[in-house]
Amino acid sequence: MTTPDTRREANEQVLDRLTEADPVIVNVSTAGEALPGMTEDTVLTSGPPLSWGEYREGQRNAVIGGALYEGLADEADEAEQRIRDGDVTVGACHDYGCVGSMAGIYTASMPVFVVEDRRSGQVGHCNFYEGESRHRLNYGVYNEEVYEQLDFIQDAIATVVGRALDAVGEVELRPIIRRALHMGDELHSRNTAATMLLTRELFPGIVDLVRAGDLPADDVDRTLKFLAESDYFFLRPGMAAGKATADAAHGVEHSSIVTAMGFNCRKFGIRVSGLGDRWFTAPMPMVEGKYFEGFSEDDVEYMGGESTINETVGLGGLAQAAAFPLQDYQGGSPQKMIEKNEEMYRITVTGHPHYRIPYFQFRGVPVGIDVVEVVEEGITPVMDIGVSGEQGGQIGAGSLRAPMACFETAYDELMD
Amino acid sequence: MTTPDTRREANEQVLDRLTEADPVIVNVSTAGEALPGMTEDTVLTSGPPLSWGEYREGQRNAVIGGALYEGLADEADEAEQRIRDGDVTVGACHDYGCVGSMAGIYTASMPVFVVEDRRSGQVGHCNFYEGESRHRLNYGVYNEEVYEQLDFIQDAIATVVGRALDAVGEVELRPIIRRALHMGDELHSRNTAATMLLTRELFPGIVDLVRAGDLPADDVDRTLKFLAESDYFFLRPGMAAGKATADAAHGVEHSSIVTAMGFNCRKFGIRVSGLGDRWFTAPMPMVEGKYFEGFSEDDVEYMGGESTINETVGLGGLAQAAAFPLQDYQGGSPQKMIEKNEEMYRITVTGHPHYRIPYFQFRGVPVGIDVVEVVEEGITPVMDIGVSGEQGGQIGAGSLRAPMACFETAYDELMD
Repeated sequence: MTTPDTRREANEQVLDRLTEADPVIVNVSTAGEALPGMTEDTVLTSGPPLSWGEYREGQRNAVIGGALYEGLADEADEAEQRIRDGDVTVGACHDYGCVGSMAGIYTASMPVFVVEDRRSGQVGHCNFYEGESRHRLNYGVYNEEVYEQLDFIQDAIATVVGRALDAVGEVELRPIIRRALHMGDELHSRNTAATMLLTRELFPGIVDLVRAGDLPADDVDRTLKFLAESDYFFLRPGMAAGKATADAAHGVEHSSIVTAMGFNCRKFGIRVSGLGDRWFTAPMPMVEGKYFEGFSEDDVEYMGGESTINETVGLGGLAQAAAFPLQDYQGGSPQKMIEKNEEMYRITVTGHPHYRIPYFQFRGVPVGIDVVEVVEEGITPVMDIGVSGEQGGQIGAGSLRAPMACFETAYDELMD
Repeated sequence: MTTPDTRREANEQVLDRLTEADPVIVNVSTAGEALPGMTEDTVLTSGPPLSWGEYREGQRNAVIGGALYEGLADEADEAEQRIRDGDVTVGACHDYGCVGSMAGIYTASMPVFVVEDRRSGQVGHCNFYEGESRHRLNYGVYNEEVYEQLDFIQDAIATVVGRALDAVGEVELRPIIRRALHMGDELHSRNTAATMLLTRELFPGIVDLVRAGDLPADDVDRTLKFLAESDYFFLRPGMAAGKATADAAHGVEHSSIVTAMGFNCRKFGIRVSGLGDRWFTAPMPMVEGKYFEGFSEDDVEYMGGESTINETVGLGGLAQAAAFPLQDYQGGSPQKMIEKNEEMYRITVTGHPHYRIPYFQFRGVPVGIDVVEVVEEGITPVMDIGVSGEQGGQIGAGSLRAPMACFETAYDELMD
C-alpha cells in the first residue's frame, strides 16, 4: 500500500534517476534499426495512442504523409486503407523508445539520434529537426517540398552528423545542457546555445571527415550551413536524452512523480512512475501563444506533441527564467516567466543538482513533478511549445498549462 | 561656446556614430604592419601615458617582458637602459589605434585583429587572447612559459584564424554582439557566446583550409581546441570594434560624451569627444571583486587596462543585466546587477537601437556616457574587469566604479 513514507522513499529513488542521469549521444541510426519493436510497416506518431478513426486533421495527415514517404502506399486513400486493414501499423512513439516533436512521425528509414543514459543504460531516441520552413511533416504537412527536405536531412545532414559523431566518439549532453541554461536556453523552445555547443563538439569530427575526403564536399558544406541556421537542432537529441532519463525513472512502485507528458490531436496525457504504462488523460487546454503574422488563436489546431518530455525532466517551461529571450518568440514578459518558474518549485520535489538558473542565483531547475503536489497546490506544469495551425504548419509558439484533470485522476489512483 | 543646445546637437552626432557603427573584422595582421606609427623599437602599454619612471611593478614588468620578447634587449636591465636612452619607445596604446587588455603589451611582431567600422571607415586593433593560464604577459608576467604561449598564439592561432578569415571574407561583429547579449554575455567579462558565434563563422573557412591542405593539421587542431577552451577569445576583436567605434565618435566639438576610459598602474582616465586628446585622470578606485582561491583584495595591484572601451560603447558593466551568469565569476547578485544596470540609463544619452537586454524586455543597452549627467546625477560608470595581483597574474574579477574626480574636471572644462 502507498503511504506518505513509501511514496517519499519511492520519489527519492525516482529523483535520483532523474537528476543523476548522464545522457550521451551514442550515434545516429535509423528508426528501423534502432527502435525496439519498429517494423518497416510501422508509422509512429505522438501522444497517448488512439484508434485510427480518432486521429484527425493534421495528425492524421502527418501519419498518411509518413506512410507515403516510406513507400507504404502510393496515395492517401491507399495508405488509409492499408492502415484500416492492419497492413500498416500506427504506433505511439513512447511505446517504441522514442518521442515525437509535434505530430512526431517516424518511419523505418528515418534517421534517429541514439542517446543512452550512462547511469542506467536506458536508451532514448529522437528523429531529426526538419529545418526552419513553416511546413514540415511533423506539423502535419506533406508534399514534394517536405519530402525533398526529409531526403536532404537523411542523405546529407544525418550522414555527416552521424559520421562526425563516429569520429569524435560519444558526445556528453549533460555539460551541454548545463552550459546552455547559462546562455539563454531553456532547452525546449530555445536551443540556440545548445545547438552551437553541440556543433562545436562535432566540428573536430567534421574536420576529420574532410581530411579523409570520403564524403561529398557539398554535403559537408550544407550540413555546416544547416547547423548554423537551425537554432532548434539540439531539441531532438535533447528530447532523446529526456526520454532516456524519464524512462530510467519510470516504473518505481509507489512513486507519484510524472515520467511522461504528451498529447495527441485530442487529449493531453501524463504517465506516472508508480502507475505503470497507463496514460491519464484530459482535454487539451488552450495555449497562451504569440502567433506568426496572419494567424491568431482561432487558427490553433493540435496535432500531437511529446517534446514536453523536456519539462518532465526539469527543462523548458520549468526553466523559463533561464531564457528571457524567449519572450520574443512566444510572448510573455520576464516578470511573468519568473513568476511561473517560481511556481514550478511548489509542484516539484527538488532543485536539480546539475542544471541551474543564473537569475535564481544558480538554484537548480525544479525537477520531479509530483502529482500529489500538483493537486494539493492547485498548480499544473508549464510547458513551452510550438503551435500548429488548421491547414498544417507552424503558426506560432507559446506556453501551455497542463490540464488539472489528468493529475486528479492519477492522484485518486495513487490514493486508492 | 558650448551651450546646452550646441552640446545636445553635438551629442546626437556622437550617439549616431556610436550606435550606427558597423564593425567588421577585416583580417589578422601584425602590430608592426597595422598600427599607425608603430615601429620595431616600440612597446605599447595601456592607459594614459606615463613617463618611464612612473611605470611600476606589474605594468613595468610587462613592458620589459614585451621588449625582451621582441628581442629589443637580452636582459631586463638592458631593456630598461634602452628605454631610458630612448632607443626603445614606450607608447600608449590608444595613440596607436589599439587598446590593451590589462597591461596591454604590443610589440611589432605580435598579431592583431584589424576591425573596421564600415560606417565611418575608422579602424581599431587589438592583439590576441593569451589563453586561460593565470600567468600572461598582459597580467605582468614574463618567463619562458609565457613566451612559448605567445609564440604559439602567433604561429598557430593567429595564422589559422587569419587564414580562415581570409577564406570566409570579413566577419560582421554587430550581429555577433547583438546575439551574444541574448545569450548571457555582456561582452567584457563574459564572451562565451560571442566566442562560439565567431568560431562558427570561421568554421567554413577552416574547412576550406583543411581541404587546401596547406596548413599543418596540428595547428588547425590546436586552434580548434584553443577556441573551444577560450571563452574570452572574443573580447579582443570586441575591443578592436569598441576602439574603432569610439574613435569614430571622438572629436566632435561641444560633445560631452565619453569616448575612452582606461587606466595605467597609477591612474584612471577618460577622454571626452569634445575635449580633444587630453586624458582627465583621477586615482584608481577599489574594485568590488571575487578572488581566486588564496587571494584577497589586499593582493590587488593595478597594472593598466583599456578593455573598458567596451563600456564606452554600451557593453560590459553597462549591460550586466544581460549576463546573470557573471555573478559566478565576479561576485554580486542578479538583483544588484539589475540595479547597477538601471542606474546606467541615468548617465547615458539613449538606449542602443541594435544591442538589447532581454531581461529589460529588449530595452537597448545604455550608451553614450554623458559627463554632464555623470556629474549632475552623482553616478559614475560601472565596468567589469579582470583583477591583477601583486606578483603578477590574474587573481580574480570584479566590478569597478570609475572615480568621479575625472568627470568633474572634464565637466569644469566643458562648462568653461
